Amino acid sequence: MLTLDKIYHASHVLKKVVRQTNIIHAPKINPDCQLYIKPENLQVTGSFKVRGAGYMISQLTDEEKSHGVIACSAGNHAQGVALAASKYGIKSVICLPDGAPISKVEATKSYGAEVCMVKGVYDDAYRKALELRDEKNYTFVHPFDDENVIAGQGTIGLEILNEIEDVDAVVVPVGGGGLISGVAFALKKLRPSVKIYGVQAAGAPSMYNSILHGKIETLPSVSTIADGIAVKQPGENTFRLVSEFVDEIVTVTEDEISTAILTLIEQHKMIAEGAGATSVAAVLFNKIDVKGKKVVAIVSGGNIDVTILSRVIKRGLLTSGRSCTLCIELMDKPGQLSAVSEIIAGCGGNVVSVHHERASETADINGCFLRLSIETRNYQHIDEIVTSLKNAGFRVVC
Amino acid sequence: MLTLDKIYHASHVLKKVVRQTNIIHAPKINPDCQLYIKPENLQVTGSFKVRGAGYMISQLTDEEKSHGVIACSAGNHAQGVALAASKYGIKSVICLPDGAPISKVEATKSYGAEVCMVKGVYDDAYRKALELRDEKNYTFVHPFDDENVIAGQGTIGLEILNEIEDVDAVVVPVGGGGLISGVAFALKKLRPSVKIYGVQAAGAPSMYNSILHGKIETLPSVSTIADGIAVKQPGENTFRLVSEFVDEIVTVTEDEISTAILTLIEQHKMIAEGAGATSVAAVLFNKIDVKGKKVVAIVSGGNIDVTILSRVIKRGLLTSGRSCTLCIELMDKPGQLSAVSEIIAGCGGNVVSVHHERASETADINGCFLRLSIETRNYQHIDEIVTSLKNAGFRVVC
Repeated sequence: MLTLDKIYHASHVLKKVVRQTNIIHAPKINPDCQLYIKPENLQVTGSFKVRGAGYMISQLTDEEKSHGVIACSAGNHAQGVALAASKYGIKSVICLPDGAPISKVEATKSYGAEVCMVKGVYDDAYRKALELRDEKNYTFVHPFDDENVIAGQGTIGLEILNEIEDVDAVVVPVGGGGLISGVAFALKKLRPSVKIYGVQAAGAPSMYNSILHGKIETLPSVSTIADGIAVKQPGENTFRLVSEFVDEIVTVTEDEISTAILTLIEQHKMIAEGAGATSVAAVLFNKIDVKGKKVVAIVSGGNIDVTILSRVIKRGLLTSGRSCTLCIELMDKPGQLSAVSEIIAGCGGNVVSVHHERASETADINGCFLRLSIETRNYQHIDEIVTSLKNAGFRVVC
Repeated sequence: MLTLDKIYHASHVLKKVVRQTNIIHAPKINPDCQLYIKPENLQVTGSFKVRGAGYMISQLTDEEKSHGVIACSAGNHAQGVALAASKYGIKSVICLPDGAPISKVEATKSYGAEVCMVKGVYDDAYRKALELRDEKNYTFVHPFDDENVIAGQGTIGLEILNEIEDVDAVVVPVGGGGLISGVAFALKKLRPSVKIYGVQAAGAPSMYNSILHGKIETLPSVSTIADGIAVKQPGENTFRLVSEFVDEIVTVTEDEISTAILTLIEQHKMIAEGAGATSVAAVLFNKIDVKGKKVVAIVSGGNIDVTILSRVIKRGLLTSGRSCTLCIELMDKPGQLSAVSEIIAGCGGNVVSVHHERASETADINGCFLRLSIETRNYQHIDEIVTSLKNAGFRVVC
């Protein structure tokens, strides 16, 4: 049974494994409340997962330790198990579906795990892990539905209270529910007045649906950039704990998550992965009642693929008017590109790419389209450029 | 005169203004040494500058405080002065050249400063600031060549020793030299065996040149993404202190700085600006002798424009094989694009943009070019895709 003692014990045991992630004041994200961030993206392995895995592994018997552990994950849990096992000097095997990003495979190896690539998807890798467990006597480390794993994640609750004694609300990303179960249990036992809010991606609302309908539900599929919480079904233990100790679960959209990632970059110089940013997104977009409250948002991890990060930034630049694409219809005669370039440069815009397209069906036979990507300052600046082009006689078609 | 007492005093005074930035272990950046990062990018205002400005302002007389302060900067110094002045409840005016990025102007205002936009470049804004100082009795806050400013920056040296008592070497970004002067003075007085290394961008080596030639030299121009240290001339105080207390100054290239930024994102989930990443670049590319040593690299700030960040990531993805552009020459007949797409998808590549170009002079009259941007896993993956396309009879021309 989960007890406060167990979480205190985990906190003591984990000192050897985890890094202290001090709370950061984030006054600008939502001026209606006093917001603090618990930056578990700055944790070793880039996520909180090392806590649960670390405590679970520490509690194995010597016999179990001698055989080693096995887990199935392409993400944060894999790295957490790998590092924790290395710290205790025991063997770890991680089963990964063969489509897993190279960067994650390399990271898992770098923390000392043996990686077993399995043809297929997550479910295939999971089956293979259970097979290997039975065959080689490994202990399986569940990513969330294990009491010791939950106790390990709960240490974050103790740390929050330690730094912000009078916290009113804590906002927690929810996938399988391990993190919020541990955190909610610890906090509600110690400070019953605190509100605990869970956040899920709208594209993967398994715990949200399950709580809504009062029973564990399984999603047919999940789709979100918050891959760390793209879980089809909550655990039995976590569903029970969330039902009892969590006040409300809300969802956030992909655009809200992206904006939260960009906000954390610009205001706090830190990278959150999609899952990690959901808590901040919920506060940023007023999904929960934070007015006048002292709120802690747990940023659970920072392991985002830079390719995705690059797309998030690109989208953020577009939606905030800091880059734009203009399409200009012009007569195909010499000097046109140079004239357009000069006008844009004169307005302080920075052209980063040009495509010149002839032979459009909709254009005049001698006409062509010039498609320009421009770095701009804001929407007003874009208007200024468009107006200057129009004033010079150019037809801006989008 | 700069004294250790003054730096201790600054450390005491600044407790009200600055955030504690705990040192982070960074074992993977250069396996030859034990590297730690002092993350001043996570400091309030996103850079260390608030320390020097904060201490300098705290030491003004009541009479001086009643008039207010003025500074000239489009960057970190502006934000540092603005926040520090607000904390002490005094007025601040910041002169900015009118080409300054909107984001920086807004940030400066948000910390409570009155912003004065000046037509022209930095030098024009600087002249305007001196004019206003004389006219309105403001106190001018120099960005680096002021004893109290240097003492404020020196508090970082005390904090480093406090956390890593047996540090062997400290690596510091150098622009005007305020940060390294304070840090080197504090550390050499308390632990004479410590080595202090300065790092400049190869495109703005003013202190490097000045030390090399034994006298203050002025660069005609500077060019680097590390805008925070793009300084044409060191200060008199800082030149003297660097000459006496710094062991060596090295330079790093733009590509080395970009790689360091990307490394900090991927390995430590944190954003450094160009200037801030120079210290990490110097360690990453073995510009200094770190073998077997306990090294602290100061990451001085994180205020990088997201447009530039986006470019840095894009370049990093290209140079590490995680994105590529392929140009395929093909006959202009139906089904070609679909065939190419299918092959790339079959290899697990993700096409993000397509340009179809007809009528090239070098191509067959019926030929055309297909230019594809693809997200890939690594160079090996790119080779795999190219080989599959070639095996299917397509001509890959770049």
